[in-house]
Amino acid sequence: MVMLDDVTRLRSYADALGRFAAGTDTPRDFLDRCLVSYTAHENDVQAFVAVNIDAARASADAAAARWKADKPLSRIDGMPIGIKDVIETVDMPTGMGSSLFEGWRSNRDSATVRALREAGAIVVGKTVTTEFAATTPGPTRNPHDLTRTPGGSSSGSAAAVGSGMLSGALGTQVVGSIIRPASYCGCWGYKPSIGGLNRGGSHDYMSQSCAGVLAATRADTWQVAREIVVRAGGDPGFPGIAGPELVPEPTAPRALAFIETSGWQTAHHHAKTALEGVIARLRSAGIDILTRHSNAQVAALEAVLPEVLPLTRKINAWESRWPLNTYEDRDASKLSKPMIQRLREAEAMTIEEYRAAIARRREIRATYAALADIAAACVTLPAPGVAPVGIQSTGDPIFAVPASLLGAPALSLPLLTLGGLPLGVQLIGFNERDADLFATAGSIENIVRHAP
Amino acid sequence: MVMLDDVTRLRSYADALGRFAAGTDTPRDFLDRCLVSYTAHENDVQAFVAVNIDAARASADAAAARWKADKPLSRIDGMPIGIKDVIETVDMPTGMGSSLFEGWRSNRDSATVRALREAGAIVVGKTVTTEFAATTPGPTRNPHDLTRTPGGSSSGSAAAVGSGMLSGALGTQVVGSIIRPASYCGCWGYKPSIGGLNRGGSHDYMSQSCAGVLAATRADTWQVAREIVVRAGGDPGFPGIAGPELVPEPTAPRALAFIETSGWQTAHHHAKTALEGVIARLRSAGIDILTRHSNAQVAALEAVLPEVLPLTRKINAWESRWPLNTYEDRDASKLSKPMIQRLREAEAMTIEEYRAAIARRREIRATYAALADIAAACVTLPAPGVAPVGIQSTGDPIFAVPASLLGAPALSLPLLTLGGLPLGVQLIGFNERDADLFATAGSIENIVRHAP
Repeated sequence: MVMLDDVTRLRSYADALGRFAAGTDTPRDFLDRCLVSYTAHENDVQAFVAVNIDAARASADAAAARWKADKPLSRIDGMPIGIKDVIETVDMPTGMGSSLFEGWRSNRDSATVRALREAGAIVVGKTVTTEFAATTPGPTRNPHDLTRTPGGSSSGSAAAVGSGMLSGALGTQVVGSIIRPASYCGCWGYKPSIGGLNRGGSHDYMSQSCAGVLAATRADTWQVAREIVVRAGGDPGFPGIAGPELVPEPTAPRALAFIETSGWQTAHHHAKTALEGVIARLRSAGIDILTRHSNAQVAALEAVLPEVLPLTRKINAWESRWPLNTYEDRDASKLSKPMIQRLREAEAMTIEEYRAAIARRREIRATYAALADIAAACVTLPAPGVAPVGIQSTGDPIFAVPASLLGAPALSLPLLTLGGLPLGVQLIGFNERDADLFATAGSIENIVRHAP
Repeated sequence: MVMLDDVTRLRSYADALGRFAAGTDTPRDFLDRCLVSYTAHENDVQAFVAVNIDAARASADAAAARWKADKPLSRIDGMPIGIKDVIETVDMPTGMGSSLFEGWRSNRDSATVRALREAGAIVVGKTVTTEFAATTPGPTRNPHDLTRTPGGSSSGSAAAVGSGMLSGALGTQVVGSIIRPASYCGCWGYKPSIGGLNRGGSHDYMSQSCAGVLAATRADTWQVAREIVVRAGGDPGFPGIAGPELVPEPTAPRALAFIETSGWQTAHHHAKTALEGVIARLRSAGIDILTRHSNAQVAALEAVLPEVLPLTRKINAWESRWPLNTYEDRDASKLSKPMIQRLREAEAMTIEEYRAAIARRREIRATYAALADIAAACVTLPAPGVAPVGIQSTGDPIFAVPASLLGAPALSLPLLTLGGLPLGVQLIGFNERDADLFATAGSIENIVRHAP
């Protein structure tokens, strides 16, 4: 089992770059340290569906040669990365957590993976996902307590980064699939603005779906996203994540909105207390905290947030009708009951109901967007508490779903521990202002880590 | 060779429904008549990559039984349909006009095909497309003159419908791939509002890409789109084509905008004269025709239209970087020179250039949208003339590209012939008002066909 101290020993690649330049470390040595964690924990954690270790070592040697020659392909040249198994890779199957796709090969890399390779990153393996990145869990266990879930659907990505097997990994989120597992596993989780990273060759096709990053540090998280977007862009028709070449400097916000969301009522007492402690520190640092009690716009947002989970479920159901109906045609016995239920729900819907749902979503997004005038970001929990016991469920997405529906960028910052288990702090920013969110997150990280 | 008279003997399925009800015709007989055309012309025309005739006959018998029992699945139950070969079908390979994908099977139907089957339509075969629905042509010939191109990239779909082998077919358009071949082959062509039909499982992934319909009549065109959209929706996040259950009644427009586009200068004299004849008839019928000379808003639109082709090429290039780079990785020798060139062009672009291009597109769309206040639709040619001689090129998309960039719905109406060859009349409507465009088109069809 990974010990709690490992939470603070995540594999920061950004921190290694100075050592590469100084000749005191190499990408090959970096990879080998990751592989020590892999060898020590993978049997228990089961983060991976497939790995390609020999190829990874060869790629790390090539990266080492480029760094030695002072000619790295990018700031992530040599970074060990994992790919959620709904995203296509040319050298490994893409199984989507479904027995229907076990061993399936697309014979190409996704847009994101192709960009990562172009930047020199090392694809170590494919990470476990729930069935079609939805609800039915895979075998992965939380590296900080093997009796607990790592969260989902980006289960293996979060567990591998959270246990030091990788510096970064790709995930996807349509409800709460990056933010929640990042919190449970103690790494950074980043769900970009809608359309922020190109989903070509990634089987997350819904209108709220987003490709994103789980990584060891704020700098690694930004850099992975940045190196992808300049090479592969965002989704077709979207500007893609915009911002500087290096992670934005920490910038103290004047004001933040603390939002309870529908999750607050049922969140665990200790988690709420921990977040309230963070809020108090932010206040002490001079940041104005707006709440539903002190601000009418925040109150207006809170009033609509109970709608976001049912609305998301309705939108996702309609948008899943295809391809689920083709999978049922092929072999219904290989679909879980929740998948069949979702398909039945979709088939019972009319296109008019769907249109009403996306029209309502547009209204809620407008309500949210207006908040940008008065707050740099929203702060809340990423999950109702630490990872729950049991791996039959990946936990409750209630705190993560608002950013998904809003199409807004969100980060989970690995800043808290409760009873020896990690818990994140979630920041939600504003659409297509991802760099501002990273700047705010840097400031909050500094305040929370360095507070007395 | 198909004789000119066949242009007026397109296989209208809507017209057959009354005969099915009366018991004087059946879907099986209808299919068999289509297969007579297929047998007579396919050797010359080469519209199909693959056919599934035995399965089609069995499906037609099943449809006939449903009609006899007065329990059709929809108004297109039993309609013989072709599927452009960039769109996945469970029972036939999806080759995308590329030797890289020859024989490739996805083992599922696309969203559109699954919906068509659910509605009882009969998938007769996969129709020839150019390489990845871009420029390099397939073997298809124009059914009205075998020395000429059918247009592209929906080459086989247009040729099969235009020669009476099918009532309808699916196509896709990102530049001019539905409107142009429909005009050349003498059938209806319909490129919906952007996002109008679900592109799931269709390999047309660009931001201007649109799934659409080529069909024998206005009613068939509408019905195919309608039966798809109520079952599969539009693209995720889009409302999908909205409108009535049956084709909208013809509605005379108060005013239309005649637009020259960049194509007028180089369009063929006879084509321009033919369109001017149409315009004169519309004027005689009391429709106000706005032009660049009479109206400032039309003039403003015409002033920006020269940008739409270069802007489209730039946007498409960036958006093609992936997957073309993965195809080059796999086997560069199986990509045409134009594809390799497009990839090099994409790799030379920066994401900032792409962002500027889509920002400019947004501005042009706003300029266009304002026209909806003063005109029911725009009218222009769908191509610079009839199908050109030779099958090494699929012809010039100059007249079709504006609607693609604008994201607006467009129709090509098979109303003209020049020297024995078909030529369409193009109508361009306004975003998400596709039903209004069909209503206007019905009126224009009546005026042009019934004018003295």
